[in-house]
Amino acid sequence: MIVTPQTHRFTEPLPLQSGAVLPAYELVYETYGTLNADRSNAVLICHALNASHHVAGVHADAQGQIVPRSEGWWDNMIGPGKPLDTNRFFVIGVNNLGSCFGSTGPTHINPATGQPWGADFPVVTVEDWVNAQARLLDVLGIQQLAAVMGGSLGGMQTLSWTLQYPDRMRHAVVVASAPNLTAENIAFNEVARRAIVTDPDFAQGFYLREGLIPKRGLRIARMIGHITYLSDDVMNEKFGRHLKPLAEQVAVAATGAEDDAARSPAEARAYRYSTQDVEFQIESYLRHQGDKFSEYFDANTYLLITRALDYFDPARAHGGNLAQALASAQASFLLISFTTDWRFSPARSREIVRALLQNRRDVSYAEIDAPHGHDAFLLDDPRYMQAVRAYFDHKVSIRA
Amino acid sequence: MIVTPQTHRFTEPLPLQSGAVLPAYELVYETYGTLNADRSNAVLICHALNASHHVAGVHADAQGQIVPRSEGWWDNMIGPGKPLDTNRFFVIGVNNLGSCFGSTGPTHINPATGQPWGADFPVVTVEDWVNAQARLLDVLGIQQLAAVMGGSLGGMQTLSWTLQYPDRMRHAVVVASAPNLTAENIAFNEVARRAIVTDPDFAQGFYLREGLIPKRGLRIARMIGHITYLSDDVMNEKFGRHLKPLAEQVAVAATGAEDDAARSPAEARAYRYSTQDVEFQIESYLRHQGDKFSEYFDANTYLLITRALDYFDPARAHGGNLAQALASAQASFLLISFTTDWRFSPARSREIVRALLQNRRDVSYAEIDAPHGHDAFLLDDPRYMQAVRAYFDHKVSIRA
Repeated sequence: MIVTPQTHRFTEPLPLQSGAVLPAYELVYETYGTLNADRSNAVLICHALNASHHVAGVHADAQGQIVPRSEGWWDNMIGPGKPLDTNRFFVIGVNNLGSCFGSTGPTHINPATGQPWGADFPVVTVEDWVNAQARLLDVLGIQQLAAVMGGSLGGMQTLSWTLQYPDRMRHAVVVASAPNLTAENIAFNEVARRAIVTDPDFAQGFYLREGLIPKRGLRIARMIGHITYLSDDVMNEKFGRHLKPLAEQVAVAATGAEDDAARSPAEARAYRYSTQDVEFQIESYLRHQGDKFSEYFDANTYLLITRALDYFDPARAHGGNLAQALASAQASFLLISFTTDWRFSPARSREIVRALLQNRRDVSYAEIDAPHGHDAFLLDDPRYMQAVRAYFDHKVSIRA
Repeated sequence: MIVTPQTHRFTEPLPLQSGAVLPAYELVYETYGTLNADRSNAVLICHALNASHHVAGVHADAQGQIVPRSEGWWDNMIGPGKPLDTNRFFVIGVNNLGSCFGSTGPTHINPATGQPWGADFPVVTVEDWVNAQARLLDVLGIQQLAAVMGGSLGGMQTLSWTLQYPDRMRHAVVVASAPNLTAENIAFNEVARRAIVTDPDFAQGFYLREGLIPKRGLRIARMIGHITYLSDDVMNEKFGRHLKPLAEQVAVAATGAEDDAARSPAEARAYRYSTQDVEFQIESYLRHQGDKFSEYFDANTYLLITRALDYFDPARAHGGNLAQALASAQASFLLISFTTDWRFSPARSREIVRALLQNRRDVSYAEIDAPHGHDAFLLDDPRYMQAVRAYFDHKVSIRA
């Protein structure tokens, strides 16, 4: 399935939750499958922190050749014959405002200054994203979605959809999510943000004007993120206390390379006794993930999106009463959580389930026993895939 | 109990596990209580990452006035009439090599260069610390300790004592510890180290020569540490999603202060919609902890001590067989863990208990149901205090 992103420019200003107003803006999106005659088979996918509108399929280059490893981030879930079957559904992926994958964000030009927005880009919230997504549906001529679906922060958007536009959707699929962040979640976000903001190359958020990129901060932010996406168990299984082989280490280490070459294989497996070189495989993995991330992700976007996570809290306006907050939801729900997810634990999904049941909503809930932590929502667990497939096959009706 | 640190200078070089040799060095230590006639009532306390030889009592200034808030880090545990009763025992606290509280470390002068050691200070391990501590006992004329005791990294030293000097101790009290670090533990250490090492003010570890301090990195390291010391539950209880009151926020925030003053109290409790200012109380707490830490802790010491944690793994030389590794231990053991400690979980203490039982060692084990996470080992839980008190009162004999 070769797919091509599209862009829509909105000229009507978007009022934001903060009180600020975003003037003209663009949203980049992709669609998969075909919208049916009565426009009743559309499913909107909401993305999490570092994902994008490119949910499924692959991209092709100018010569029509498939770009290697260009599969969308939920390609295992969405496509022809897949759990969310694009032979039946018309699926929409949209890049959120403030992101760095095409939709208007801090790397774009602020029309008021002719310079990149940088730190002046207004704070956007989950609610703002949902409003922007609803406007895109207007453009696509879709009055009511068959479903909204998302994992993690995408699940928060899905939940917010059921409250902001209850009559524009029939089903909500909320995976590995939570009704708000815990203090620990906020704490991890804050450490990542401090790493970015205190990087001297951050330049108060106007690094692009200065020709700088706060890569040090982005690396640290990504390393912290990775630890919290995985379970302790899966890290032990994948990496344990294994040492990085010295042959590869030489390429990574800044010093001591000439000594290593002289060592025998048996000696090579001894500790190096170094505080700055890579010693364990887990260190090498994290450094690599941090390096990759710092090459493509925007620092202001990282701040904005983690703040959107922090702020999301539909119960807040109801004195913390989640059941009261969810009273306006009309959708049927599928919620899924993963046993080893300590970032968005099953207990948090059960809070949502409980609040929905108090409102006598139609709720299905699957708690999947998976070892992979929060990352499980992107992986191929067959019970997980089957739960989503069964829901779309048997619960989500379309009219034509 | 007013106490005064003492210093001993060792002129015999110390061979280190890495193969390096530390020439002359100093150890700073304190003692509490009185060594009895046959020198059988000495208890050595081993400290964790950011603690020191100042275990109990208070310090006085030159005028003999007690320095406010100068209580030792385990003053609730150790002193006259306390669980480890200094009316009965002679207790020794010693600052480890490579630390930054007095014993020889990276901030001291390298005699070979006349400059601070900095990154050239040799890597020291748990085993090296134990060897240095044993030499201090020689100086104090103590052939056999009644007990060695420590929490966290201090528990690792205690465990190592039972293997390195089985005939020089009778009891081992190992609190909130583990037989080695998990991949996740190493991962958190590595992120903290990367934050320090990539701080431009780290200057390859020779920041003191350059008149610099890598405070940004130290702050991030400490913030990460704090998150892992606490449990999710206790963070929710202490901070939850509470916003920082704006009055205090004004002092912290770099921008927007003039707007805040104009807001009414009701408005003041609304979100600020800011990516860089403090919004939640947990953020303010972590920033404060990071700031404090960066004022007094040495960056190279942080690297060295986290590496000592990473490296400790007595089972490593026995193909991962912990029971085999612990076969040489002769001491009686008290092990204590805390249910919500996810950094050194009860499961890790149980691994040690199991391995000791396989060697038919005398083992007591208490798993304390406490909400405070890893930090619990420094706090006043009465069941915890009672377990230690009962062990010293009834199990640890002294001859006079």
